[in-house]
Amino acid sequence: MGKPGPLSLNTMTVRDQFSLAQCVEACQRHGITGISPWRDKLAECGVPRAAKLIRDAGLTVTGLCRGGMFPAADAAGRQAAIADNKRAVDEAAAIGAQCLVLVVGGLPRGSKDIAGARRQVQDGIAAVLEHGRASNVPLAIEPLHPMYAADRACVNTIDQAIDLCDRLGEGVGIAVDVYHVWWDPNLAAAIARARGRILAFHICDWLVPTADMLQDRGMMGDGVIDIPAIRGLVEAAGYRGFCEVEIMSANNWWKRPGDEVLQTCLERHATVV
Amino acid sequence: MGKPGPLSLNTMTVRDQFSLAQCVEACQRHGITGISPWRDKLAECGVPRAAKLIRDAGLTVTGLCRGGMFPAADAAGRQAAIADNKRAVDEAAAIGAQCLVLVVGGLPRGSKDIAGARRQVQDGIAAVLEHGRASNVPLAIEPLHPMYAADRACVNTIDQAIDLCDRLGEGVGIAVDVYHVWWDPNLAAAIARARGRILAFHICDWLVPTADMLQDRGMMGDGVIDIPAIRGLVEAAGYRGFCEVEIMSANNWWKRPGDEVLQTCLERHATVV
Repeated sequence: MGKPGPLSLNTMTVRDQFSLAQCVEACQRHGITGISPWRDKLAECGVPRAAKLIRDAGLTVTGLCRGGMFPAADAAGRQAAIADNKRAVDEAAAIGAQCLVLVVGGLPRGSKDIAGARRQVQDGIAAVLEHGRASNVPLAIEPLHPMYAADRACVNTIDQAIDLCDRLGEGVGIAVDVYHVWWDPNLAAAIARARGRILAFHICDWLVPTADMLQDRGMMGDGVIDIPAIRGLVEAAGYRGFCEVEIMSANNWWKRPGDEVLQTCLERHATVV
Repeated sequence: MGKPGPLSLNTMTVRDQFSLAQCVEACQRHGITGISPWRDKLAECGVPRAAKLIRDAGLTVTGLCRGGMFPAADAAGRQAAIADNKRAVDEAAAIGAQCLVLVVGGLPRGSKDIAGARRQVQDGIAAVLEHGRASNVPLAIEPLHPMYAADRACVNTIDQAIDLCDRLGEGVGIAVDVYHVWWDPNLAAAIARARGRILAFHICDWLVPTADMLQDRGMMGDGVIDIPAIRGLVEAAGYRGFCEVEIMSANNWWKRPGDEVLQTCLERHATVV
């Protein structure tokens, strides 16, 4: 198969090492041409300054992480989430992000009604969608691994995300992260079905054993995911964008020098992606 | 809805407190009429003695845990797994178990080929199936939560398990554990499709947060799973058997007195299942 799309740095990968400004400088130093900030790094930098830094560096912004977290125990909570997502759309527009990634949220506190949470997610996205369209910011629903269904995202398969897209219409698509979807028995068909809807492609790896459900993701090549196979499926479905590396790793990669992490990402991008 | 089926004690629930003989005694003491041993407890007791203890106590054996673990890096490893599963069938027959639960296994060491592992699982079950049929021991494929796809079971949804059943024919069905399937967006349809194939129904709960991927399951009622809803689906699909409680809980329930655990299981079975 051909070479992968260019590498983009999700700032989470060097969460503990670099500010957003340092991420931008590091991308330039390493020849990385894409970036995807998290909102906390963006806020820390200030949106106008961040937009200028990124623009001056000529980086493609492959996404803004993240909107979502729509379900809430009461209407006020749901309205607050919608308002926050509209602000996230504005931030994404300000930095020229190709999409706003949505980690849609899990069960409201005290609830056991996952079907209800899923309806709240659909309603929440619907309420933000017009603002996203008007701002030219597509919303990228990221199906998260089912182990996050309770507390982070009750959208857990690509098929489920595409069903949502079908119901919501234009302006919404999906983010495919190999970490969340690699296990899916229906993966090939689901990605094929996602044609024209794939807004982002995230890479990392699934470690065996996985010591922590949230912050023990692996560097590409260190785990069990057949990343080239999934990239092949995504490309066969028409995706031509970046490979965005997003590694949450409290006890390994977050403890290493940022430049070593980026160098390793580049090496692995060239060899195992 | 009506009352749940009777409670069965999976010995894993009191792994650190009770031997199999003590489990049998405890069941009698608490009026629990079903039991499901793990093979290590069975081996410790000796199969003939265990069979007699269980029979004398009048307990229904709702399953034997567990066969499976079929994928292996070479043919010798796969043959060893098949031989071990045939022994497990014999043990299940000896204690009159209603099924042999299969935790099918994950990726062979060093492999990234999950589709290949899934083929090895199908081939492995096929190689054991005739022996299961001849021994009147149905094989119960247990789809495990996707977070175990790499190292424990590459069958991760009810639909996938039923597809396997359809290909394998008579003598094989599924075990539905609420812990593994509660997140599935397609759960209702998948359980309906499983009609006539549900050999066991396992209960516990999903805690938020979950501190450990393997040994932090919750007591029914302490987590976010709508157990009555799933029981309703299983019963609507024709299941009329026991509710088998299987809780792996290194830092909570395994540390409490066994009788307290069983008493709590009974109370929750009466109120939140």
